[in-house]
Amino acid sequence: MPKQGLPTAELIDLAQQLRVDSIRATDTAGSGHATSSMSAAELAAVLLANHLRYDFDRPDHPGNDHLILSKGHASPLLYSLYRAAGAVTDEELLTFRTRGSRLEGHPTPRLPWVDVATGSLGQGLPVGVGIAMSGKRLERIPYRVWVISGDSEMAEGSVWEAIEHAAAEGLDNLTLVVDVNRLGQRGPTRHGHDLDAYARRLQAFGWHTVEIDGHDVDAVDRAYREAASTTGRPTAVLAKTVKGKGVDAVADQEGKHGKPLEDATEAIAELGGVRAVHVDVHKPSAARTLHAVPSGHLTLPRFEKGGEQVATRDAFGRALAALGAARGDVVALDGEVGDSTRTEYFGKEHPDRYFEYYIAEQLLVAAGVGMQVRGHVPYVSTFAAFLTRAHDFLRMAAVSRADLNVIGSHAGVAIGEDGPSQMGLEDLAMMRAVHGSTVLCPSDANQTAKLVAAMADLRGIRYLRTGRGATDVLYGPDEEFPIGGSKVLRRSDADRLTLVAAGTTVPEALAAADLVAADGIDVRVVDLYSVKPVDAPTLWTAAEETGCLVTVEDHHPEGGIGDAVAEAFADGRPTPRMVRLSVSSMPGSASPEEQLYGAGIDARSVAAAVRLMVEKGVVR
Amino acid sequence: MPKQGLPTAELIDLAQQLRVDSIRATDTAGSGHATSSMSAAELAAVLLANHLRYDFDRPDHPGNDHLILSKGHASPLLYSLYRAAGAVTDEELLTFRTRGSRLEGHPTPRLPWVDVATGSLGQGLPVGVGIAMSGKRLERIPYRVWVISGDSEMAEGSVWEAIEHAAAEGLDNLTLVVDVNRLGQRGPTRHGHDLDAYARRLQAFGWHTVEIDGHDVDAVDRAYREAASTTGRPTAVLAKTVKGKGVDAVADQEGKHGKPLEDATEAIAELGGVRAVHVDVHKPSAARTLHAVPSGHLTLPRFEKGGEQVATRDAFGRALAALGAARGDVVALDGEVGDSTRTEYFGKEHPDRYFEYYIAEQLLVAAGVGMQVRGHVPYVSTFAAFLTRAHDFLRMAAVSRADLNVIGSHAGVAIGEDGPSQMGLEDLAMMRAVHGSTVLCPSDANQTAKLVAAMADLRGIRYLRTGRGATDVLYGPDEEFPIGGSKVLRRSDADRLTLVAAGTTVPEALAAADLVAADGIDVRVVDLYSVKPVDAPTLWTAAEETGCLVTVEDHHPEGGIGDAVAEAFADGRPTPRMVRLSVSSMPGSASPEEQLYGAGIDARSVAAAVRLMVEKGVVR
Repeated sequence: MPKQGLPTAELIDLAQQLRVDSIRATDTAGSGHATSSMSAAELAAVLLANHLRYDFDRPDHPGNDHLILSKGHASPLLYSLYRAAGAVTDEELLTFRTRGSRLEGHPTPRLPWVDVATGSLGQGLPVGVGIAMSGKRLERIPYRVWVISGDSEMAEGSVWEAIEHAAAEGLDNLTLVVDVNRLGQRGPTRHGHDLDAYARRLQAFGWHTVEIDGHDVDAVDRAYREAASTTGRPTAVLAKTVKGKGVDAVADQEGKHGKPLEDATEAIAELGGVRAVHVDVHKPSAARTLHAVPSGHLTLPRFEKGGEQVATRDAFGRALAALGAARGDVVALDGEVGDSTRTEYFGKEHPDRYFEYYIAEQLLVAAGVGMQVRGHVPYVSTFAAFLTRAHDFLRMAAVSRADLNVIGSHAGVAIGEDGPSQMGLEDLAMMRAVHGSTVLCPSDANQTAKLVAAMADLRGIRYLRTGRGATDVLYGPDEEFPIGGSKVLRRSDADRLTLVAAGTTVPEALAAADLVAADGIDVRVVDLYSVKPVDAPTLWTAAEETGCLVTVEDHHPEGGIGDAVAEAFADGRPTPRMVRLSVSSMPGSASPEEQLYGAGIDARSVAAAVRLMVEKGVVR
Repeated sequence: MPKQGLPTAELIDLAQQLRVDSIRATDTAGSGHATSSMSAAELAAVLLANHLRYDFDRPDHPGNDHLILSKGHASPLLYSLYRAAGAVTDEELLTFRTRGSRLEGHPTPRLPWVDVATGSLGQGLPVGVGIAMSGKRLERIPYRVWVISGDSEMAEGSVWEAIEHAAAEGLDNLTLVVDVNRLGQRGPTRHGHDLDAYARRLQAFGWHTVEIDGHDVDAVDRAYREAASTTGRPTAVLAKTVKGKGVDAVADQEGKHGKPLEDATEAIAELGGVRAVHVDVHKPSAARTLHAVPSGHLTLPRFEKGGEQVATRDAFGRALAALGAARGDVVALDGEVGDSTRTEYFGKEHPDRYFEYYIAEQLLVAAGVGMQVRGHVPYVSTFAAFLTRAHDFLRMAAVSRADLNVIGSHAGVAIGEDGPSQMGLEDLAMMRAVHGSTVLCPSDANQTAKLVAAMADLRGIRYLRTGRGATDVLYGPDEEFPIGGSKVLRRSDADRLTLVAAGTTVPEALAAADLVAADGIDVRVVDLYSVKPVDAPTLWTAAEETGCLVTVEDHHPEGGIGDAVAEAFADGRPTPRMVRLSVSSMPGSASPEEQLYGAGIDARSVAAAVRLMVEKGVVR
């Protein structure tokens, strides 16, 4: 193993190379953030050459450090680092931002050394907290997490959620490097070059801070050593830098953000020309595998069909606890509502794999993303309504190709008296529109349990929606519920329409079917527990045989089950008549029964709608 | 005017009354947060009796103070305050949480004295910042903003976005009262009763802090006086309190959150029984009207049809600047991307009404909500992708019945090289699912300008989606674009299908129509600029006459234009065949043209899809 640690002159040379390469990449691309890369060149060079422990040939090495470029727009700097490390060729470097290149405008895990996508600011540190928590609390592997952040993004609240958590947990394996270049996109940042302003805040939260000239490679090196040797708390290296450093035409000037340099040739000459410094990056020590392998047989809770009513959130909690017993890789994260979401059941049985993130939903989701980077299988839970707080993190998790289970409880008006602030009424729209997501909406306890287990092995973002109140157990404990499936709960050859429901509205639809059957009207009932992917063939058959699909959902009219059903017919095939019953008015406080009635999605209202459709001749 | 200021004994009595009434309300309702109300009884009593200036008969009095109960679950306390002020009768108090009552589980503006809905934690202070900014920078009226917050919600990043901004702006008209009762929902908070932990953090951000025993009415009174007399910076009153204070059966105990007391009668006896203390709340001084009335004639920018290409974001910026010249009530807020969203045009012309909120999108939206509380007409802008950061605030803004203009720029893959982190691909799904929202997606500069002006007078949350790149000017400057309308850009009696597009995809659809026309295939083209409400009659006609609707959108398949069109047929009427062309794969970096082609939504791809449908006999 070569001794790590370049001498000062070579570090300076490497930093200049990173600048030159950032200019070359953006110049060839005709776009990109040259000046934002240039300010952090020494910060990146010293990290790569003297501190990072990383095996570029084995990005899955469990001992690897994690480097997150939170200021993702400075991607040219990251790619230039990869070139210096020999991971990316000069030829590939110059494919930056072109179609098909792995070197995207903002980093994504299409590159094997990128853990998570960045580019939406203020996400790097929260994700880094999840990775650092994993190292400290789950794996006990001494890798370090290095987050390079911009100064502008320190305004994001998500960063302060992470700062609070990192200090409280004593994450001394986490280093935040802030490239304080004083200039944001449209002009000066709030604090300019006032490093103390950042230091005061971070110290108040319990961080160790080091303030340096970010262009002094020796100072940077000392700061990183100090960070690595500080125990019991995380360290922030606050580096005063110059945006566009090294090139007079752009240095420290407004209006130079997010664009290539006007005269790249002259700039490269000013920086001493193109170089080919290669860094033998220090490899990590051997480390054991990440976590206990799946350890036992899964024994899901079983609920008696037609027996005592059970809330799907209860079934979720019990199933998750059982899954945790069977699989060592499952972890649970909650936002201070574990007694409501029922993750507390998991927490009681597996306290070492249960993580309380308090009321900080952005961090909650980001930390889950961080933990899946390390190979864990996180289940992240809060109220469905409050998941909207983390929408940007869920969106970016998809860009990160993260595998993440997300659970939203207290869905819909069915929660009752608490009122609209607590009701998840847009969660299906939000989660369906996440790229590559799976969206599940179980209607009973056994179905919930089976889906909780099935989620663990899916790819991408998978969402499970649970309800607050106890509802009938509709299925036996041995029934199977494949992802992408549905259940036809009522059918006859005389069905005049099909009620398509999911979650709380399934028992309402069943009761409505009974009510209209008494009037001689047969209707089909489909339990659409898999909202995405949706069981198109069953819907096609229902459309063909009954001619009309009536969706019944405890959700706003847009983007939910009505849309999922419509999308199944968006391939040009003949389309049935459709009706959406959903929550279209603003609820207030009322009992769950009154709420469902008020929204027109209880059994009586659904039955009335069916009768009206028959009377008006809408159905056959 | 009666002298304000109750003596100590009466303040103590009032606080006990607030406890008793909170217990009575929750007991009658059978649900609700009694103990969370009880901890803050003195904090609320002293505020009402000695400090708040508020005319309950004139909630629209411009001089009124603003009281925001950020810990909205403690609504019984707020309603008990209203009873003490004579605004709510005892009879109404006991309607708490029942169907039809204004006294919802969490406060909403159905009560005229409630500015904004709370219940999603961490929103009160950010909204309060908007109201305080309005008082300081726009109206120069010396009202005060009082935010009563829980301790748990201090974990929300949005709170720290607000704390940073309030200090930087020197908002000494803002007081944050933190009810540090040490217990969250499922257990102890991170900092327990460590008031210093909060004080250190707040001071580091530049706040003045006062630490007190929150049950000592004299100490509370002194703290509020200190807050009111502190100049140049905001004050936080950090009050050590006991959850469930006053009733031994629940005081300072876990497991007592969010439920009525088990023995209300005994608890009320312990608190000294039911009282009828009335407070003559001090009224505000006379204040002038809120802002300059609409002042002049609106002269929107005019763009030449078929002339130079113009980006819709440019048209937005220019129209907003023009609107600002015509109307004194229009204000603009941006999240440090005004050079990209083009709100900088407004900022240059109306710097006194332009507000930079830096990269803190939650605060950005919340501050807009706060400013509309004061009667202003805010236009809040950032990238469409980053609006997801503020989803919970947009959702709650609807519960708050806020009138707010929201602009998301850089929509879709059409932005090109920057990649998916910067692309708004789920904004239509998010904004359509906001209750009562208006969603506009203009395709050219003149249309954008007209819609920017029309938005100002709508109710609710209205969203405008703009694009990055310059596109054709399709309409003349005198064309009208009513909300809820659309434009049929191509039609013949021989149309075999209808292309429905909006925004960037409109010129693509037009070009596709030209391409297939050359093959003898006539297609209709609809510019669906009003995505919500949608122009159903035009879609119905197109369905009847062409039999097939093909939506073309630069958005994920879920919840966008495809869904908006499907929803127009969700009333049981015969449904046309439908096809959705949208962004269904994860984009990388590429030029705008390559991106549209890659997603299959450019002219060539749309034309190919049309030809295929004709070949396959999908269309007539």
